[in-house]
Amino acid sequence: MIERLLNCVREKRPLIHHITNMVTVNDCANITLAIGGLPVMAHAIEEVEEMVAASQALVLNIGTLTREQVDAMIMAGKTANSLKIPVVLDPVGAGATGMRTESAKRILNEVKIAVIKGNSAEIGILSGAGGKIRGVEAEGIHNDIESYKRFAKDNDCIVAVSGATDVITDGSRVAYVDNGHPMMSTITGTGCMLSSVVGCFCGAESDYFDATVAAFASFGLAGELAAAHPEVKGQASFKVAFFDEIYNLTEEKIKAGIKVRFEYF
Amino acid sequence: MIERLLNCVREKRPLIHHITNMVTVNDCANITLAIGGLPVMAHAIEEVEEMVAASQALVLNIGTLTREQVDAMIMAGKTANSLKIPVVLDPVGAGATGMRTESAKRILNEVKIAVIKGNSAEIGILSGAGGKIRGVEAEGIHNDIESYKRFAKDNDCIVAVSGATDVITDGSRVAYVDNGHPMMSTITGTGCMLSSVVGCFCGAESDYFDATVAAFASFGLAGELAAAHPEVKGQASFKVAFFDEIYNLTEEKIKAGIKVRFEYF
Amino acid sequence: MIERLLNCVREKRPLIHHITNMVTVNDCANITLAIGGLPVMAHAIEEVEEMVAASQALVLNIGTLTREQVDAMIMAGKTANSLKIPVVLDPVGAGATGMRTESAKRILNEVKIAVIKGNSAEIGILSGAGGKIRGVEAEGIHNDIESYKRFAKDNDCIVAVSGATDVITDGSRVAYVDNGHPMMSTITGTGCMLSSVVGCFCGAESDYFDATVAAFASFGLAGELAAAHPEVKGQASFKVAFFDEIYNLTEEKIKAGIKVRFEYF
Repeated sequence: MIERLLNCVREKRPLIHHITNMVTVNDCANITLAIGGLPVMAHAIEEVEEMVAASQALVLNIGTLTREQVDAMIMAGKTANSLKIPVVLDPVGAGATGMRTESAKRILNEVKIAVIKGNSAEIGILSGAGGKIRGVEAEGIHNDIESYKRFAKDNDCIVAVSGATDVITDGSRVAYVDNGHPMMSTITGTGCMLSSVVGCFCGAESDYFDATVAAFASFGLAGELAAAHPEVKGQASFKVAFFDEIYNLTEEKIKAGIKVRFEYF
Repeated sequence: MIERLLNCVREKRPLIHHITNMVTVNDCANITLAIGGLPVMAHAIEEVEEMVAASQALVLNIGTLTREQVDAMIMAGKTANSLKIPVVLDPVGAGATGMRTESAKRILNEVKIAVIKGNSAEIGILSGAGGKIRGVEAEGIHNDIESYKRFAKDNDCIVAVSGATDVITDGSRVAYVDNGHPMMSTITGTGCMLSSVVGCFCGAESDYFDATVAAFASFGLAGELAAAHPEVKGQASFKVAFFDEIYNLTEEKIKAGIKVRFEYF
Repeated sequence: MIERLLNCVREKRPLIHHITNMVTVNDCANITLAIGGLPVMAHAIEEVEEMVAASQALVLNIGTLTREQVDAMIMAGKTANSLKIPVVLDPVGAGATGMRTESAKRILNEVKIAVIKGNSAEIGILSGAGGKIRGVEAEGIHNDIESYKRFAKDNDCIVAVSGATDVITDGSRVAYVDNGHPMMSTITGTGCMLSSVVGCFCGAESDYFDATVAAFASFGLAGELAAAHPEVKGQASFKVAFFDEIYNLTEEKIKAGIKVRFEYF
């Protein structure tokens, strides 16, 4: 089923407006192109409303936030809401500083979010379940499914938690994604790139739960396929192979390779 | 003829001051080094005049513009004008938002531009011929040669329009460049990188028409050569091969591979 | 001896807080991961104190400085000082503009620096020995060892000067590192990446002289090993191989490959 969403992305070629961090912005643009979307990055408060109005999804990422940037995110997010354009929030480093936690909460309060995607520490801290973060990385993984479901219900959104096993829930449905490879954590920005890919799928499919599961499974599978390349000798050659595999994904590969379990309540 | 300009770049090693976007800035710096120039990026209003004064060309790119950044561009541009340093303008996303269109026009009004380089939508919108842009990409390509020539004459500059066939004109001469490869559009920032390469050639050769044609042909040819690499398996391995080919370009390869037609009026 | 410091980095996995430029920030994050550290980038004045307090080293790089960013650097630096967290300063382009020279001096005056790392022009200009810079690159290399030693003593810090032969001194000890390869200068940001690696070693070893020597030797050795790869065909494939070699460094490789001479006074 969800493997067909890849073709939706490639046929619709959704425009994904990013307001994102300066560390991984190039990778986010390239992964968007590789999976089949069209990226645009714009953060000036004077233009974000106009830019988001032309897009099919908005990705907000607070990885190198400033106060002005958060203001622009909220302005773009409200425009997206009024136009029924899905908003993906990546609360990078929530919990690492007060500013990050408060900014993520402020965005959640002022903007209707379609998908919030983070690691177990970021989501744990925002949902109240707790967690420990070091820089922008979770220390230890403690998936509290009930807490994720409540967080999803409270915000009427998809909660997507990356980890060795990814957890995605809309409050009643829960999906566990076992795709992925340890090499993915050796490069910076895999989390940011995954948020861009989630944006692409949500820009092409209105069931954001299915869209998010498809994004996570496709992304993790590409990591597995890349790690198996004989020419991968370390971090950087893995990164090249990973982008190539995202670019070369097909419905058939996804069908054969995805490892997803669903629970319904 | 124009193949010799590559050696001019490599001998003079022009310093190219960029005020550019945060998405592709690293690629712009690397392509500048690869073709034989020396990149410097600086955008603080307190230092742009001093930095541009030491450079051989200035590249202005509005890909992630802010009001402050446009102010810095105009200040740097005026200094460049007073010192006869060529200014290359890449009006990324002109037409996508009012801010982009107005900023590009403001720069064109206040700074003497040597080369304006964009896709057919960006140039069409700025020249009055019209066009449709989605994010930062042209939708459909409608080359209106007469409009480009008029735009070039009105601004006393080179107008360079990227596309399957690139069009470059100074208002009387027109060059059509057929070099390039579809893989080039699978990576973000090829347009930005091309502007950097145009900056390098303009920093080494005072006939900016010839310089721009040489830049486009060299750039497209490197794309063709890269796409033929057996190790290219997708977007990212193509990007690696492309930078390698820019780095390994020679006068001989350009002479053998360029596909340029000229028209004189 | 110093080869063992690599394992210290990998065991402690120091968190390295960067306030750095937008050109090479992605490479700095990836090299930090590759050598064994954990990167975090944050520059908002509201959060830098909290972020640096959680880190094991702070890297300040003025490559695309603004006034606000320098203020954030000084604020973060003072917090680092109060917590005995080492601060690495990379005065990119000092001498190229008044703003860069003054900002580097202001940081040196207001923050206790553990290691200042630059090319011979940047260090020469800041130490008073003189030098000539073009953009952000030294023109000609004039190592004035006595001047470096005096500069180190005056600031009670390590002075580390990159070049064909790197020079590192704490004012009494001097180390000369002959590792490295000319291909390293064909990619942008090697200097910035080296500062990140110095940050990683200083975050894991409290003798900052040894830490800096180990960082330089390891970095240069990875460049040599990468340049020997048969698949390296140019700038970009070298960069991939270089990151892979940093990732694959071992105590044994460093022991076998480092070229360091020490002088004691």
